[in-house]
Amino acid sequence: MTGHFITMEGGEGAGKTTILHRVSKRLQELGLDVITTREPGGIEISEQIRHIILDPAQTAMDGRTEALLYAAARRQHLVERVIPALEQGKLVLCDRFIDSSLAYQGYARGLGIDEVFAINEFAVQDCMPNLTLLLDIEPREGLNRISANKEREQNRLDLEKMTFHEQVYEGYNLIAKQFPKRIHRINANDHIDEVEQAVYENITHYLKNNERREG
Amino acid sequence: MTGHFITMEGGEGAGKTTILHRVSKRLQELGLDVITTREPGGIEISEQIRHIILDPAQTAMDGRTEALLYAAARRQHLVERVIPALEQGKLVLCDRFIDSSLAYQGYARGLGIDEVFAINEFAVQDCMPNLTLLLDIEPREGLNRISANKEREQNRLDLEKMTFHEQVYEGYNLIAKQFPKRIHRINANDHIDEVEQAVYENITHYLKNNERREG
Repeated sequence: MTGHFITMEGGEGAGKTTILHRVSKRLQELGLDVITTREPGGIEISEQIRHIILDPAQTAMDGRTEALLYAAARRQHLVERVIPALEQGKLVLCDRFIDSSLAYQGYARGLGIDEVFAINEFAVQDCMPNLTLLLDIEPREGLNRISANKEREQNRLDLEKMTFHEQVYEGYNLIAKQFPKRIHRINANDHIDEVEQAVYENITHYLKNNERREG
Repeated sequence: MTGHFITMEGGEGAGKTTILHRVSKRLQELGLDVITTREPGGIEISEQIRHIILDPAQTAMDGRTEALLYAAARRQHLVERVIPALEQGKLVLCDRFIDSSLAYQGYARGLGIDEVFAINEFAVQDCMPNLTLLLDIEPREGLNRISANKEREQNRLDLEKMTFHEQVYEGYNLIAKQFPKRIHRINANDHIDEVEQAVYENITHYLKNNERREG
């Protein structure tokens, strides 16, 4: 596979979606063949799985069932969307991937980072991201940004207790230590324009180094 | 948990469902508190998952997605149906469980028995069956029985090529060797009355030994 697979991670309200959109546009202006995606991404099977997970009536869903469903939706999105694009040499920017499961289910829900990693290894096989940008924002600041944004409908996860978001934050910190080469932290407490610039520079730096190695 | 968890396995047409029904009735007549179940077993979340797997339109489903979905449906059925019954001291008879995934996805579909076992370990944790009865029938004989049974609607798996059913058979053989204490093979080429009797004796023998250990 000749493409590059870059993922964006972080807690709620970190600005992942907005920044990915902006950075993707700038990278396209450089002449790069970029696709931006996120799970379930319109992949029919993954959409159906996500529908089960996010059904507000599913209050009885076990945490392990949920983690297996996320891994299943991830697998299908990877096979149908990400891998074909990488094979065509594209730059794939993905909004959340394996580390979200490690932080949310593995750490914050207490299933264990290593155990959740095992089922995701089964789903992902050797298609791990080449680079992961972790938008590092204080959980309280992230949630403040969400509640200030009236256009964005609050989902089930937004409504969880503050403690949960703090645990997600701690989880991401641990994962970043486990994968120091792959995961780069970006300070996301700054103004969004500065965060965007940091993400952009990180990606172009990665691409430059990577082209150098290939050449 | 004070109950006993017994699973029934085997290829298509081995007679699992009929035999479980008959044996369950005989065990109840002994005064035992028995429940018979199978995944997804009316558990809403598991039914929804199974609906995605068996949708004939899902021709593009990746084998790993399918295996993760089976593990998710298994987890929820286990948590909502099996574990509560075991906690009440019941004898739970389950028509297919983890070994079906190992034989069908792990071996016949080529995902690897160990890899499929890993995601199922995540789903099952320490709730492995106490005893598994493997109905051992030649694949061709099993399929003949199915096509002779006009009342039973053929599903997608029945329609797979003969080669696939032979691989399932080989897979079960390997798994039985991996778990020789837990898995007991029952010759299922005989008349169904004889197979029923062998299953019945195997279960009562297990229960007798198990009560002895507790006493």
